Amino acid sequence: MAGNSFGNIFKITTFGESHGESLGGIIEGCPPGIELNLDSVQYEMQRRKPGQSSIVTQRKEEDEVRFLSGLFEGKTTGTPIGFVIPNTNQKSDDYSHIKETYRPSHADYVYEKKYGIRDYRGGGRSSARETASRVVAGAIAKQIIPDIKITAFVSSVGSIEMNIPYQELDFSLIESNPVRCPDTAVAQKMETLIKEVKKQGDTIGGTITCVIQNVPVGLGEPVFDKLHAELGKAMLSINAVKGFEYGSGFSGATMKGSEHNDLFNEDGTTQTNFSGGIQGGISNGMDIYFRVAFKPVATLLQKQEVLTNQNQIIEQQGKGRHDPCVVPRAVPIVEAMAAIVMADFYLLNKIYNK
Amino acid sequence: MAGNSFGNIFKITTFGESHGESLGGIIEGCPPGIELNLDSVQYEMQRRKPGQSSIVTQRKEEDEVRFLSGLFEGKTTGTPIGFVIPNTNQKSDDYSHIKETYRPSHADYVYEKKYGIRDYRGGGRSSARETASRVVAGAIAKQIIPDIKITAFVSSVGSIEMNIPYQELDFSLIESNPVRCPDTAVAQKMETLIKEVKKQGDTIGGTITCVIQNVPVGLGEPVFDKLHAELGKAMLSINAVKGFEYGSGFSGATMKGSEHNDLFNEDGTTQTNFSGGIQGGISNGMDIYFRVAFKPVATLLQKQEVLTNQNQIIEQQGKGRHDPCVVPRAVPIVEAMAAIVMADFYLLNKIYNK
Amino acid sequence: MAGNSFGNIFKITTFGESHGESLGGIIEGCPPGIELNLDSVQYEMQRRKPGQSSIVTQRKEEDEVRFLSGLFEGKTTGTPIGFVIPNTNQKSDDYSHIKETYRPSHADYVYEKKYGIRDYRGGGRSSARETASRVVAGAIAKQIIPDIKITAFVSSVGSIEMNIPYQELDFSLIESNPVRCPDTAVAQKMETLIKEVKKQGDTIGGTITCVIQNVPVGLGEPVFDKLHAELGKAMLSINAVKGFEYGSGFSGATMKGSEHNDLFNEDGTTQTNFSGGIQGGISNGMDIYFRVAFKPVATLLQKQEVLTNQNQIIEQQGKGRHDPCVVPRAVPIVEAMAAIVMADFYLLNKIYNK
Amino acid sequence: MAGNSFGNIFKITTFGESHGESLGGIIEGCPPGIELNLDSVQYEMQRRKPGQSSIVTQRKEEDEVRFLSGLFEGKTTGTPIGFVIPNTNQKSDDYSHIKETYRPSHADYVYEKKYGIRDYRGGGRSSARETASRVVAGAIAKQIIPDIKITAFVSSVGSIEMNIPYQELDFSLIESNPVRCPDTAVAQKMETLIKEVKKQGDTIGGTITCVIQNVPVGLGEPVFDKLHAELGKAMLSINAVKGFEYGSGFSGATMKGSEHNDLFNEDGTTQTNFSGGIQGGISNGMDIYFRVAFKPVATLLQKQEVLTNQNQIIEQQGKGRHDPCVVPRAVPIVEAMAAIVMADFYLLNKIYNK
Repeated sequence: MAGNSFGNIFKITTFGESHGESLGGIIEGCPPGIELNLDSVQYEMQRRKPGQSSIVTQRKEEDEVRFLSGLFEGKTTGTPIGFVIPNTNQKSDDYSHIKETYRPSHADYVYEKKYGIRDYRGGGRSSARETASRVVAGAIAKQIIPDIKITAFVSSVGSIEMNIPYQELDFSLIESNPVRCPDTAVAQKMETLIKEVKKQGDTIGGTITCVIQNVPVGLGEPVFDKLHAELGKAMLSINAVKGFEYGSGFSGATMKGSEHNDLFNEDGTTQTNFSGGIQGGISNGMDIYFRVAFKPVATLLQKQEVLTNQNQIIEQQGKGRHDPCVVPRAVPIVEAMAAIVMADFYLLNKIYNK
Repeated sequence: MAGNSFGNIFKITTFGESHGESLGGIIEGCPPGIELNLDSVQYEMQRRKPGQSSIVTQRKEEDEVRFLSGLFEGKTTGTPIGFVIPNTNQKSDDYSHIKETYRPSHADYVYEKKYGIRDYRGGGRSSARETASRVVAGAIAKQIIPDIKITAFVSSVGSIEMNIPYQELDFSLIESNPVRCPDTAVAQKMETLIKEVKKQGDTIGGTITCVIQNVPVGLGEPVFDKLHAELGKAMLSINAVKGFEYGSGFSGATMKGSEHNDLFNEDGTTQTNFSGGIQGGISNGMDIYFRVAFKPVATLLQKQEVLTNQNQIIEQQGKGRHDPCVVPRAVPIVEAMAAIVMADFYLLNKIYNK
Repeated sequence: MAGNSFGNIFKITTFGESHGESLGGIIEGCPPGIELNLDSVQYEMQRRKPGQSSIVTQRKEEDEVRFLSGLFEGKTTGTPIGFVIPNTNQKSDDYSHIKETYRPSHADYVYEKKYGIRDYRGGGRSSARETASRVVAGAIAKQIIPDIKITAFVSSVGSIEMNIPYQELDFSLIESNPVRCPDTAVAQKMETLIKEVKKQGDTIGGTITCVIQNVPVGLGEPVFDKLHAELGKAMLSINAVKGFEYGSGFSGATMKGSEHNDLFNEDGTTQTNFSGGIQGGISNGMDIYFRVAFKPVATLLQKQEVLTNQNQIIEQQGKGRHDPCVVPRAVPIVEAMAAIVMADFYLLNKIYNK
Repeated sequence: MAGNSFGNIFKITTFGESHGESLGGIIEGCPPGIELNLDSVQYEMQRRKPGQSSIVTQRKEEDEVRFLSGLFEGKTTGTPIGFVIPNTNQKSDDYSHIKETYRPSHADYVYEKKYGIRDYRGGGRSSARETASRVVAGAIAKQIIPDIKITAFVSSVGSIEMNIPYQELDFSLIESNPVRCPDTAVAQKMETLIKEVKKQGDTIGGTITCVIQNVPVGLGEPVFDKLHAELGKAMLSINAVKGFEYGSGFSGATMKGSEHNDLFNEDGTTQTNFSGGIQGGISNGMDIYFRVAFKPVATLLQKQEVLTNQNQIIEQQGKGRHDPCVVPRAVPIVEAMAAIVMADFYLLNKIYNK
């Protein structure tokens, strides 16, 4: 009820504030007997981690995951996997200036009003640092469904868009540049823009596209728990996300049925894929693809008007180490949440096995 | 698990196929002692009902709701409200032609593959007729939160967009035209387009905008059950929806933080509202607004290639009575789902009462 | 949250008051493709139904189940099964005398205090009539797990106990007498006692024993959702139940470990079965058996002191048609709840299938 | 679904095996702003801890709780409370002898069959060590409902029963003896019996009675989530529990309605309390009391026949440090689970606040 869990069969529950002792979580429903590749988990953590490149925040966070249960002699046992990610490099002093102020477009104000109390250090529970726990769960989810390939990448930064259909992209180039955009020419422009924005103490939004391939037919539940509804909720639950569209998305709203309908081939595949791999909430075996919009990070390294808890507007200089653009680091988070959704529906679908 | 329920405290569970004996549902968590206005419920049903105007399907469905429990002497008792909506005008014969075929961009194929069986008449469970039950729940949800005003309207049909900011619209005009667009000049163009498309036996997509006003600060749960994540899931669970964005949405992804941040006024309101009334997943008291994209209806009154259950592609003439454009009738559904989400979070938030 | 649902995968949600228009429910998670035997459902309804014999209430309730969805050409489709049981013979006038009074050991008082309003006719939602919906779900659950045999019977009425181990009983005799006790000699004594008690306008308690045979190893989830914990909750949720014990039960608390431990045979079965077929919350393949205690029905056909809503104690004559002893009619309810639990865990366990 | 969580609003999710790195859990739904008394938490841990007296296991477990989140400057913040309890004194070598054997009346066999793998050291997830996490949650739950007084004590060991009505007991004597029985004379006999049984390398069962006082009217949800059904499930989920009864319990099944009915006083209290403080699943303001049966601990320090994973029966000498009787240490666990249930329903009931 308090919203700290995601998933039904494969389920992650997280805890932790950005400047508390540690983050962590409990992963339930992981099938027993999986030889877990912990290096893969740590690899995903590295992709999300601050300080990887000059265009992301220079905070140092080790983000080392310690598993506390659910594994025995390297294999999952079917029991819950508890884990912690210690907060080793948090500087709480950085945040004393916001103790009594509410920054614009942050959750400071609403947390204070809702709970009557907040851990103001680094945004506390509302910090995107919470997503580290999701990446752990996502990395494990990927290992439950090794045949399903989940690939996310940056498709726009500000007004710089990459317009190549994903089918023509070389996904192996995603990690070749700090932006995580597989079109290296566009990536270069994006990087330049981010650096420019950073120099101004400003930030910029962007979008991430995610493609899920090799999906079996039949995943997803009809009516309220449609596969794309869960994917949408999963993405919208990530910090800074403002929009989600799948398949034809918003552009589908401008089309005619005669254009949009995906005619079948004899093998049940379709000639086009405006549907985005999902019909009536259930996977049809074609690629699932969706796009997620991220707003610009609200923390600026500029002077800004803030509200005090005495109802006054004052000027405050933003400080600390923050991302000028969140999308490069959000790529593994989008993949993680997609993997959690897919693993969950994959396991749930076993109920229909004879 | 099977996805027929929505909500936590205020919760709707639905059942029913389009051509079965009846649709219906169970509404749980409605507070006791509410003098329920059943005319309001029926009014919302009329808005969703087929056959209201020349631009929607001419099917006749009475859509009369019969309440079976949870009410005593006109008031809610706190016990579950069971209801049925008899299917009175279903013509199952209309559908014998699809018994052995899978129509493009319908759920026929995936239901067959997932369940090994399907009620093919009118799409069965995958029919948008299921949303009638949601409208019942939404009409009751609205009565739980009478101070919160929820207004949806059509903001585009095909490429015809209404670009006036919602603040400048006269919402009382929404019901003045069959399209449910409050700009009557644009509505006229939309209507013309829909009629044209209909004449061709084709269909067209569109978008709906929804505005939620007078929301108390503090609704929504952080992390996974963010207010906008639930609104997004709610909308994406409606048939034919392809995208959801709130506040600045996808255009926010092109902005800088210095433009996008909503500076506070001294009373905690904000000067701009790119945030769309939600920060960190929690309502901040400003208007919530979002936009929902609907694809064109997949059922065409044209010849189309379909797949048979013998893996053959054949031509089939679409028939029956279908909407050329779904958005006019989807307006009350969007409002209903929004009302369910808001009532649920409103009730859940009482837990924080001293 | 409002407590009208039971089960995870196989799930029943019920609605309805004893004197409203109808009872009913929604069954989710029933696997597709099952040729449902509706006569079996109706048979179980007949076993629960009032008026079957001279020792149960003489109320006439038809208790005919009407299925509204989820079935197509006689088979389940995997979509939710909605059903109603019309209240055809309710006489609301019978209850006008309790409109302003709270009967001892009834839920009248607590409903009024909790909700501020109650449908006082026949106990409303608190009436055992609600269990009719459970019997429907249970009858369907039994068809999901045809190999698992669930048998309940009356093992005591008042102080008359049947002390024969269940292994020596002939279960085919259970339905041979109105008490539903397979020891016909004891059944005769029980019947005499019930008639005597009835003549006095009084009521009497009793116990039901339930045996679940042919259970696969591995059903149940460890820690909080242990198989016996769910069985216990299921039983305790039935009206009038005061206690639950399984396996050795309360008498196990007097034993030594050296007596109580069930030594293995080489095939994994055990020589004794004090464990009651469950270890650590998981079925071990041996018979599951448990005992459920029912208090005497609180409605007496005698004069009794009641509390008025004006805080006065007055005398009131009980009237209406009530059971002098609830256990004979509770036998199919115990079986139904047991079947729901077993079907749910059976389906849930499929997640572990390769 | 995997059964590691308990509660709806106030919710505990646990992880951890007895010989893994640590146990722990996440507590959700704790209201914000509570000045948490951590000494009380640690006090409850000491009560559960092994090695407290000569009649319990002499294992040394520090059982120190480390809180990782959800607290700020000593107060709860409304965000999830993550905690760990390091396993500091586990000797895994003690268990190598059971690697390939299944002990009678343990969960070894069923875990192996269900999951195909198990952490055999000390019972792994099936160890009662898991209840340490419950005690943490219970100690916090008690602080949410400080007015509700929850008291458990040992009411029987083997055949030695304490028969004094709880109203005549002096609860302050519970902690005066190692058995936790408030009748010191009976406690002495119980202690002697436990020591005797221990000397034989044997174990013995017992019962715990729990009394919940000062409960507001109205807690509990009707139908499936009755207050006593949740209490029953909570208790039955504790390791070694075989039975649960509340109010008149099993003896109520022998009574007549005219004896059993609790006549009202004018203030809504009742003259007797066979109902055990609950009517129709909802608290009526009278004391709630219930009794829980625990089987004898299955681990004996004797030779016993065990089953090997090669389907052979061999003799094995039990070893390690185990409780000869579980009930003295289970008293705080019973209280903890009762507190979780009561806090959860207390918070849930706020939904009915105007």
